[in-house]
Amino acid sequence: MNKQLLFVKRPTGEADASTWELVSNPIPEIEDGQLLVQQHYVSLDPAMRGWMNNAKSSIAPMETGSVMRAGSVGEVIASKNPDFKVGHYVAGTGGVQQYAVTDGQGFYPVDPKMAPLPTYIGTLGMTGMTAYFGITEVGKIKEGDVVLVSGAAGAVGSIVGQVAKIKGCTVVGIAGGTDKCKYVVEELGFDACIDYKNENVATKLKEHCPKGIDVYFDNVGGDILDIALTRLRRHARIVICGAISQYNNKTVVKGPSNYLSLLVNRATMQGMVVFDYADRYKEGAMQLGKWMAEGKLKSREAIYEGIENFPETYNRLFSGDKKGKLVLKVI
Amino acid sequence: MNKQLLFVKRPTGEADASTWELVSNPIPEIEDGQLLVQQHYVSLDPAMRGWMNNAKSSIAPMETGSVMRAGSVGEVIASKNPDFKVGHYVAGTGGVQQYAVTDGQGFYPVDPKMAPLPTYIGTLGMTGMTAYFGITEVGKIKEGDVVLVSGAAGAVGSIVGQVAKIKGCTVVGIAGGTDKCKYVVEELGFDACIDYKNENVATKLKEHCPKGIDVYFDNVGGDILDIALTRLRRHARIVICGAISQYNNKTVVKGPSNYLSLLVNRATMQGMVVFDYADRYKEGAMQLGKWMAEGKLKSREAIYEGIENFPETYNRLFSGDKKGKLVLKVI
Repeated sequence: MNKQLLFVKRPTGEADASTWELVSNPIPEIEDGQLLVQQHYVSLDPAMRGWMNNAKSSIAPMETGSVMRAGSVGEVIASKNPDFKVGHYVAGTGGVQQYAVTDGQGFYPVDPKMAPLPTYIGTLGMTGMTAYFGITEVGKIKEGDVVLVSGAAGAVGSIVGQVAKIKGCTVVGIAGGTDKCKYVVEELGFDACIDYKNENVATKLKEHCPKGIDVYFDNVGGDILDIALTRLRRHARIVICGAISQYNNKTVVKGPSNYLSLLVNRATMQGMVVFDYADRYKEGAMQLGKWMAEGKLKSREAIYEGIENFPETYNRLFSGDKKGKLVLKVI
Repeated sequence: MNKQLLFVKRPTGEADASTWELVSNPIPEIEDGQLLVQQHYVSLDPAMRGWMNNAKSSIAPMETGSVMRAGSVGEVIASKNPDFKVGHYVAGTGGVQQYAVTDGQGFYPVDPKMAPLPTYIGTLGMTGMTAYFGITEVGKIKEGDVVLVSGAAGAVGSIVGQVAKIKGCTVVGIAGGTDKCKYVVEELGFDACIDYKNENVATKLKEHCPKGIDVYFDNVGGDILDIALTRLRRHARIVICGAISQYNNKTVVKGPSNYLSLLVNRATMQGMVVFDYADRYKEGAMQLGKWMAEGKLKSREAIYEGIENFPETYNRLFSGDKKGKLVLKVI
């Protein structure tokens, strides 16, 4: 049997247990051109909240009644597709279920001897690609830049800051809680980290970035984006990667009141979606993999177990109760 | 005697009569290296409101008690500076006064036989440069783009739209009132113009730009910026040139609630300040002058008279009661 998590009800505000329904269905027979993947891990991402809305987004909204969309990694256990062999491992968008039947579109081989499987949906997957292309191509970092990263202990932010350090930038993170800030500075090597739950972000930002910031990589939106806008240097770049503080809003999104700082400082605010770099994922994964192998880049996953625990695990994305990439083991 | 308008009181919200004081002082003797300019016209610009605040802006705030800062054009009537000859005409930042003494910094020669004097502080001055470099360099327009321009009947907006038309774009303006919209379409040649005072901007925008917009040139901010954000095409560019709807705010600026459209559409919002293009003004002025000579570009000034009428003329910037570039004759 295949345990599947169905997306059954579009939430208003926060998703809760009523958003999904766990079902068990027979594993389907595969047809010509298809393969069957036994999924080991599924990826949990803030973008999931956007997929639940019936609104234009970077990809189509999810349909209610369908398997909850998610990145995944697993083993090919049956194949009628010449491109995929039984026993090989693949990553793709297999959804929150134990077995995925696919024609292979969007799936690609991964090597569990090179890196642990969860890394392929984290640092070597969409998460890492988002961080790498976001900070290099949209943030356009160069040596000596002062870089600010929100969600610094999170999946994307932790990679963004480490890449910026490797590239010779001064990097300040923003994270929630003493423990996370300690992790960001001591383990990830950021120059400083502001604890937004216990410190005054504006004051600390002035202290840590007395000359202002060249790049702000924004994962959170809201008040922190507004504060960052007050500290821009001339020709600064703001990378809009996400706005986790706003995803569960029932009211209108808080727009950045200080956006006219873009004018005064001739600065740029640019949105990024990782899919635009699809033809360069290989380049990104090779670079990140090389840095990992050299010990310059740390990849951390927060791994939880059991498909039935998806809803509570998902909530950790928004409660902030995890470090690094959030992954659920479903095998 | 030299009639001068002094900036005497920083306004909260709208500037009013108490903001300035008209005084008469003897025309000073010039010293070595200086010249005396008899000013003919001064420029009125929305940016003036920003200069009145004691806050970081693209240039230093004005000091109270100083002559009101303004672009100007006039005749050199005395000179102890070898770079400027008596009888020549110059443009610069002479301030709101009848005679300006200067060391020549920021002043440059203009030729009244090539274009009427007011044009040198309008289409061939900072206004034209803002429009030209803003739409070409920041807006990065290319043939076939759909371009939206707010403040379309205004000094900058009217040039922006005409340049975009010349470059092969579809151009939709936004202006206040039937008369202005008629002017924008019939005289300036925009493809359409939305009357924000009498029409639903969101509905009309959808109608005129069914496929969305590639470039939005924003002079106004506020609700119109928020509506424009809902209609972005992928990789759209928003040029933040001004936010006249917000300049007289006594409360916090309204940030664009729909800014996450930048993310969904991988779009860019970039601030621009004309001074960054100072080394290319000659190129810009030559191009705009050429289009004017060819009859492709219309330059219109709304000229008022009398230095004592500065406050009420200034208010037309915000009431919208004028078309084209607002200029005050002070001679």
